[in-house]
Amino acid sequence: MAEEVLESFRKKICAELDQVVAFWLKHSHDEDHGGFFTCLAKDGEVYDDLKYVWLQGRQVWMYCRLYRSVERFRKPDILQAAKSGGEFLRSHAWVPVAGNKKCAFCLTHSGQAVKVQRTIFSECFYVMAMDELARVTEEQQYQDEAVRVMDQIVHWTQVDSSGLGRPELPGAGPTNSMAVPMMLLCLVEQLVEDRPEMAKKYNELGHWCIQQILQHVQRDGNAILECVSTDGQELPGCLGRHQNPGHALEAGWFLLQYATRHQDEKLKKLAIEKFMLLPLASGWDQQHGGLFYFLDVEGHCPTQLEWNMKLWWPHCEALIAFLMGYCETKDPNLLEKFTQIFQYTFSHFPDAVHGEWFGYLNQEGLVALDIKGGPFKGCFHVPRCLYMCEKLLDDLLGKSPPL
Amino acid sequence: MAEEVLESFRKKICAELDQVVAFWLKHSHDEDHGGFFTCLAKDGEVYDDLKYVWLQGRQVWMYCRLYRSVERFRKPDILQAAKSGGEFLRSHAWVPVAGNKKCAFCLTHSGQAVKVQRTIFSECFYVMAMDELARVTEEQQYQDEAVRVMDQIVHWTQVDSSGLGRPELPGAGPTNSMAVPMMLLCLVEQLVEDRPEMAKKYNELGHWCIQQILQHVQRDGNAILECVSTDGQELPGCLGRHQNPGHALEAGWFLLQYATRHQDEKLKKLAIEKFMLLPLASGWDQQHGGLFYFLDVEGHCPTQLEWNMKLWWPHCEALIAFLMGYCETKDPNLLEKFTQIFQYTFSHFPDAVHGEWFGYLNQEGLVALDIKGGPFKGCFHVPRCLYMCEKLLDDLLGKSPPL
Repeated sequence: MAEEVLESFRKKICAELDQVVAFWLKHSHDEDHGGFFTCLAKDGEVYDDLKYVWLQGRQVWMYCRLYRSVERFRKPDILQAAKSGGEFLRSHAWVPVAGNKKCAFCLTHSGQAVKVQRTIFSECFYVMAMDELARVTEEQQYQDEAVRVMDQIVHWTQVDSSGLGRPELPGAGPTNSMAVPMMLLCLVEQLVEDRPEMAKKYNELGHWCIQQILQHVQRDGNAILECVSTDGQELPGCLGRHQNPGHALEAGWFLLQYATRHQDEKLKKLAIEKFMLLPLASGWDQQHGGLFYFLDVEGHCPTQLEWNMKLWWPHCEALIAFLMGYCETKDPNLLEKFTQIFQYTFSHFPDAVHGEWFGYLNQEGLVALDIKGGPFKGCFHVPRCLYMCEKLLDDLLGKSPPL
Repeated sequence: MAEEVLESFRKKICAELDQVVAFWLKHSHDEDHGGFFTCLAKDGEVYDDLKYVWLQGRQVWMYCRLYRSVERFRKPDILQAAKSGGEFLRSHAWVPVAGNKKCAFCLTHSGQAVKVQRTIFSECFYVMAMDELARVTEEQQYQDEAVRVMDQIVHWTQVDSSGLGRPELPGAGPTNSMAVPMMLLCLVEQLVEDRPEMAKKYNELGHWCIQQILQHVQRDGNAILECVSTDGQELPGCLGRHQNPGHALEAGWFLLQYATRHQDEKLKKLAIEKFMLLPLASGWDQQHGGLFYFLDVEGHCPTQLEWNMKLWWPHCEALIAFLMGYCETKDPNLLEKFTQIFQYTFSHFPDAVHGEWFGYLNQEGLVALDIKGGPFKGCFHVPRCLYMCEKLLDDLLGKSPPL
């Protein structure tokens, strides 16, 4: 019975992954300059040719990961497009800023820098891209590049952030924003896979990330807060009360993945209770269904205009989190939660007419923006979610991975 | 008959201005550190004590303007609060950035800098505040400060922008963003009022602002675009197609005010046709009423998540624009448009329970954020709109201003 249910999920998820990947293969490749168009209208039309570096990096990563892990995607055109995207990034992403080199945030279609952000995230997705390229091509140069940039990111994060170009201001002390240790943990998991020497190199960093993420469990264990002080205290004002349920859920499966690798049962339990069940309970819209984008832990109205919208990616993260939780525990409650999220997600986000998923619904669940890609949505969260869920269901159903 | 209609508008607008000013007087004053709390919940509760410099400057300006122009607001507590806000800004707003001094964007409640933006806008509202303080206090120091900072802003804008701290990037050439000449025109109108020597000093700048704003009339005169090239050509992509109807309408009354002062009939006509009637026609939601926040001139879906929301300030600007247009032309069509906007605005934004206006409605016109103040909403657009409409109605009804 449970097996039938899982098979049914698997069938829908495989079919969805196929159509989503087909959409990006068909519409997003820039044959002239390399790299990917990611500003795609509902029918796949390119409505802007700017290239956001983190979306380029994510698409390279996604293509490589599918190529090396899922037999039906081991195709030359996928590998070729990934390499082209990687070369586009290596040639154009790095720009001199304040006597330093940083990845641009955004490039023109031919690769001229348009904008640089004073954060680490463009560089992080560059590392993801280079590391997966190293794995599929077996070319050492890509791995060297990944490690070089990773070490730069760690330097900015742990030693000296002045290279990011942010002014130091007396009213803005250092804070622990959950995005930073989450992102670094994601990179650690990427870099150490099947590489004992890397696991050793980044062991301490991984441990640091976990400690930093756990500082976000606040209010006697009853809430995950996005931003805390560097010594793990709640910050004043809106910033301190800010909650992002989808982000907490993503942290949940990052933690669970780490805990599984380290056989840490206590951390597994904590990941599920605090970073999955808690944000789902507080973040789910009881009236209209779906996860709110942002909340204030005190129940104040958030100041972000989009706070009550339903975005695709928190739902993607929630699906991975609860299916991974079920995989690790076989707790039927977690499969039930997965089912709840699956039903909302699959009945609201996929576009049956043109393929791919809508990304932005209003509170009531109607499409507010009908773009398939934009500055913040590319070939990443949807296919990563479907790919990971397919793998988890394969494990649950005892299917050996074909590669 | 028309007079009765205008009297009825005037009565509602006066009453609304009274209650809005009372709300800010009651809830926003920081008696401990000076300046104003602007993050106010629906009932006036302070939900965050950060002080956004541009909102501080705007509230100082508004209090001073009401004090000197509207008899019933000539009260010591209003002047005292304005002076306290001005002193808070002079003591705390300026911070060293990259060997330069800039106004912070945001301060802690006690005045420590939290964030600096690489734009001119915090400085611009600082100038507005200082100039109005000079007018109500007749203290030369405030006017000197206003002119000093104004000249710095003009230097950044027309001579050398490096002091703003923005990196120069090959893919991001200089552009003409309508906000810049609009803001400068607003400052020119502020500084020259009843001061012939200032009118002379800033005459050329005013003319430059007009030329820069008129470059935004694009597509054979059929659209106002927010951002064009410095030689007045349409830019590629979403940036080039971006429209902000409320901003165009605000530019409309800025232009009309300038045209009236310069007795320029051609510019008056252009202001009304291109910057009022056009953005109202394209920006009005035919289905649910109200002005969209952002649009794409080609009809693509904008990438800003809030594009279809109804914000308070575009409606405030629209009210001023059409009433001023009617004042200058007596064209009944403009009074009809004013009535249309008035009906939507007064039936959707004011909060009959706690006072002041809601700022953020969803497309259907329901309150999406119930805050009365936040990082972008303070004591400015609503009272400025009501104050200006009251003045315009006084003119139309032949009432002499009492001061």
